[in-house]
Amino acid sequence: MKAEGRDYRTLWLEDGVVKMINQPLLPHRFEIHECRDFKETADAISSMVVRGAPAIGACACFGMAQGALADRLAEAEKLLAATRPTAYDLFHAINYFKENHDGGNGSEIAQKYADESAARCEKIGIHGAELIEDGMNLLTHCNAGALGCVDWGTATAPMRVAKEKGVDFHVWVDETRPRCQGSRLTAWELVEAGIDHTVIADNTAGSLMSRGEIDLVIVGADRVAGNGDVANKVGTYTKAVLAAENNIPFYVAAPTSTFHSDLASGTEIPIENRDESEVSGMWGFTEEGTMRRIQIAPKNSRCLNQAFDVTPKKYVTGYITENGVEKL
Amino acid sequence: MKAEGRDYRTLWLEDGVVKMINQPLLPHRFEIHECRDFKETADAISSMVVRGAPAIGACACFGMAQGALADRLAEAEKLLAATRPTAYDLFHAINYFKENHDGGNGSEIAQKYADESAARCEKIGIHGAELIEDGMNLLTHCNAGALGCVDWGTATAPMRVAKEKGVDFHVWVDETRPRCQGSRLTAWELVEAGIDHTVIADNTAGSLMSRGEIDLVIVGADRVAGNGDVANKVGTYTKAVLAAENNIPFYVAAPTSTFHSDLASGTEIPIENRDESEVSGMWGFTEEGTMRRIQIAPKNSRCLNQAFDVTPKKYVTGYITENGVEKL
Repeated sequence: MKAEGRDYRTLWLEDGVVKMINQPLLPHRFEIHECRDFKETADAISSMVVRGAPAIGACACFGMAQGALADRLAEAEKLLAATRPTAYDLFHAINYFKENHDGGNGSEIAQKYADESAARCEKIGIHGAELIEDGMNLLTHCNAGALGCVDWGTATAPMRVAKEKGVDFHVWVDETRPRCQGSRLTAWELVEAGIDHTVIADNTAGSLMSRGEIDLVIVGADRVAGNGDVANKVGTYTKAVLAAENNIPFYVAAPTSTFHSDLASGTEIPIENRDESEVSGMWGFTEEGTMRRIQIAPKNSRCLNQAFDVTPKKYVTGYITENGVEKL
Repeated sequence: MKAEGRDYRTLWLEDGVVKMINQPLLPHRFEIHECRDFKETADAISSMVVRGAPAIGACACFGMAQGALADRLAEAEKLLAATRPTAYDLFHAINYFKENHDGGNGSEIAQKYADESAARCEKIGIHGAELIEDGMNLLTHCNAGALGCVDWGTATAPMRVAKEKGVDFHVWVDETRPRCQGSRLTAWELVEAGIDHTVIADNTAGSLMSRGEIDLVIVGADRVAGNGDVANKVGTYTKAVLAAENNIPFYVAAPTSTFHSDLASGTEIPIENRDESEVSGMWGFTEEGTMRRIQIAPKNSRCLNQAFDVTPKKYVTGYITENGVEKL
């Protein structure tokens, strides 16, 4: 992806150090965060310096390579597997590493995983772009963009390909409270990619749908169960119900590494609860360019910070994978 | 309502000065804002020092009294009517003043309007409390509380009455981006009233509904059209669709002053768009107790700030007015 005019991947391994775009600083500051060992890499996943299911997977794979280099692979696996419970790519990547690692250079295995992950997303873009027509208004939720992957993105990959093909479309971007990955990360990516977009409060998409101002919804996924139920950023279920009510196609874009076919249904997917402070307040940049947290809710009100929700298959028009667009 | 242990109304007239609780400072600081003439009163409505349909109505009526005292009634009417286009109470209150004013003391007319408005809300509370049962989880959106009215609130009045009756219930509070009237104002009111509650991101209510964790939704209204369509804070339509999908009763609590029966349908209700900066950033309090705005979205992304949406009558289980609970 482009960042400040140069080509970047979201994360990569360099001389045993995992380097990644520091996502909490975006869109205000572009910095590369460095993780010198698997503990720092696990911390980067937990604290969401890197986030998004495919990016978490690649990061875990690089972390496993760091564990192998330090001859502490079992310890690395335990720590990495405990970072974030919902994204299936995390476990997919750890298993990939273990299945391919024979004691040799783990870095090459992790690099191969990252390259394959990026290639899957590019194919998602090529297949998904077929759905985007001139004059369309798209909606996306959270950041299922290049930053959430190694490159290309899942939900945004079709937008990148359609833009390259010269299709004229507009994207509504849900800000995606509480962490605002939409207004911070997706909006930043679309600015850098030159894609026409408008940020909206999460409350606004329903109204726009009812007024005929949204033609197509594309979201990502953190895990897809065997029956097609989708775990994704909280609010995804809401957009799916609204899309169904207004007869708007609702697509889930995800590589097959996100599909957990052994899982019978979405109700079995573990849902991560995060700290209350993300709901009771907000992080952003002051006019002076300092990153600050402000408190919004009363200090003696409790908050619930459910990070994901489950969208039943019946609301999904189709799944965009590296293999094509299909209805499960 | 209680504020810091004392009884307050949201706004009142004292020696020609309109005094009101300064709502943008809540929940962090409790201050009384003073408007010395109708221009300052109109400013307070526009800038949302006071907000909420019934409170806007009472404030406009006090502003008309200030206009009458200054012998500049026509000027006051013009200015006040232009402050916020969606809330019907604004026009209802201005008309009430004009119909009752015969050149005498306008203050008494405005005071009578405010008292009647508070009494209507108390009755909404008594009728609506019949819907709240032990063990229930309620959802409310935005602030249709005492702060949005002269006293009691609309959506929160039934909660206040149920609490007084000793009913044991819990309220989920939508934070209500972009201005967070839920996490700032409704949460503050519920803290002061000792009502059990939890603040959630706007994205979370759908998921809670799908998991059976919401039994009843009560929201307010800025205007109800003749056919029962409801204009209210953006996001209300979304909650109504989600409630219908999950077979959860969805009630609109509003005094009859909010009903604009001459209006054929909700599509004719003017919807206010507000400044982009409310979506691209957020106001709150720093740790040092300073009110600050932080920027969230990229400075070169556009934002849409639609303040209201329209919920078609078909999603409304019933309307709670001062006359009772009824299905139109």
